Amino acid sequence: MKIDVYFTPAHVDESLIRERVVVVIDVLRAATSIATALFNGAREIIPVQDVETALKIRNNLGEDVALLCGERNGKVIEGFDLGNSPLEYSREKVEGKVLIFSTTNGTVAITKAKQSRELVVGSFVNLSAVARYISDRSETDVAIICAGKLNMFSLEDAVCAGMIIDQLEIQMNLPVALADGSRAAQVLYKRFERSISKLLQTTDHGKYLSEIGFGKDLEVCAAVDSVPTVPVLVDNRFLKTYQSREGTEQ
Amino acid sequence: MKIDVYFTPAHVDESLIRERVVVVIDVLRAATSIATALFNGAREIIPVQDVETALKIRNNLGEDVALLCGERNGKVIEGFDLGNSPLEYSREKVEGKVLIFSTTNGTVAITKAKQSRELVVGSFVNLSAVARYISDRSETDVAIICAGKLNMFSLEDAVCAGMIIDQLEIQMNLPVALADGSRAAQVLYKRFERSISKLLQTTDHGKYLSEIGFGKDLEVCAAVDSVPTVPVLVDNRFLKTYQSREGTEQ
Repeated sequence: MKIDVYFTPAHVDESLIRERVVVVIDVLRAATSIATALFNGAREIIPVQDVETALKIRNNLGEDVALLCGERNGKVIEGFDLGNSPLEYSREKVEGKVLIFSTTNGTVAITKAKQSRELVVGSFVNLSAVARYISDRSETDVAIICAGKLNMFSLEDAVCAGMIIDQLEIQMNLPVALADGSRAAQVLYKRFERSISKLLQTTDHGKYLSEIGFGKDLEVCAAVDSVPTVPVLVDNRFLKTYQSREGTEQ
Repeated sequence: MKIDVYFTPAHVDESLIRERVVVVIDVLRAATSIATALFNGAREIIPVQDVETALKIRNNLGEDVALLCGERNGKVIEGFDLGNSPLEYSREKVEGKVLIFSTTNGTVAITKAKQSRELVVGSFVNLSAVARYISDRSETDVAIICAGKLNMFSLEDAVCAGMIIDQLEIQMNLPVALADGSRAAQVLYKRFERSISKLLQTTDHGKYLSEIGFGKDLEVCAAVDSVPTVPVLVDNRFLKTYQSREGTEQ
């Protein structure tokens, strides 16, 4: 199984990802919030790039069914129901709802990857579930796309990519062929594997989120395997497919 | 001193680099060849992006003064005098000459960085000389731009960036402020610091160069501090400014 890592969505090779399972990583915080929302019973999540599209879809679905979710510069979009903190996506708020979701970096990466064979989102909270999803498709090559921040490198996304690779190679003992990006990601993971929580407090975006009052989110986003859900894109919306180690796909 | 690392030239922040000393890294092989050529007495090196511009400049200067140098896909450009192997840039061939230089990735990164306050090129062969150049300007922030390969991450460039940072921070004991990219580069360097030569044999581009017959170049490019020259861009051409630890700028 070949695994390539793109540290930003800027130059994803679209012809390559057509044949691959793609994992979009956005630790802080879109991937974490999307997995949490599906785990807590959201019916589906529709990723959109801009506010105008989000409003149009919501008007079609109705306010009782659909919630507007997302952020710009880390803060809830004006007039939206929910921001991008995983703590907002409680069962009480999201169960049975359709979430229309727009974030600065995560949804850009997702849009870039729409042409892939299969598309899932990953973060530390659903890491083992994502690794199992990949290992169940071990005949297919993989591309991991880090959302980064405004097309810049994000250390937490790179480390998370490396943790997925490490789990596939070392713990699951799969034969993986790594390239420069995937080798680098694994090295970065090995450096920080014992201090994921501390890492999130010290990365550029982690520090920014603390500054604007979302310090608590960092702990939630660092909780490895706390959310055993793999969001999978089906017809342009994320559905929940995996529930637990013992769970079945649905 | 702030140090930022860009792993590809794709999204360099042009307003940021205007205030900074920029180091363009292209270990395999443009930065290595440019430093070697200046060390061996080339008068100046004019980086150009396309063949047409190279030919025009050569016609103006004359064949006795100027050499056409560069590669596409690792191989010498048809009709050019020299390719991109540092072994070609002997004193016998380049002394007193003007080199017009065009490569796939290196000159793209250099062109991107032209707006910077100062621009030098670095690789393993001139690493300590580049670090000293930066430390002499320690009041100025730094951006390190890895040439990468077709806007993809190159491990050898990232490790080289990390080695410069490590030398400034640990050996020269300068107070450096790192961001996500520069932290990652330093971690990657620490992983490979004892095996630079082996690293070059195993990276994506290193393997490609071996396949097309340039295996010997990898040893040359891995020889840390073998070429104590810092190429500095002055009026769109590289001149030699540093010669040795004891040397003077010229």
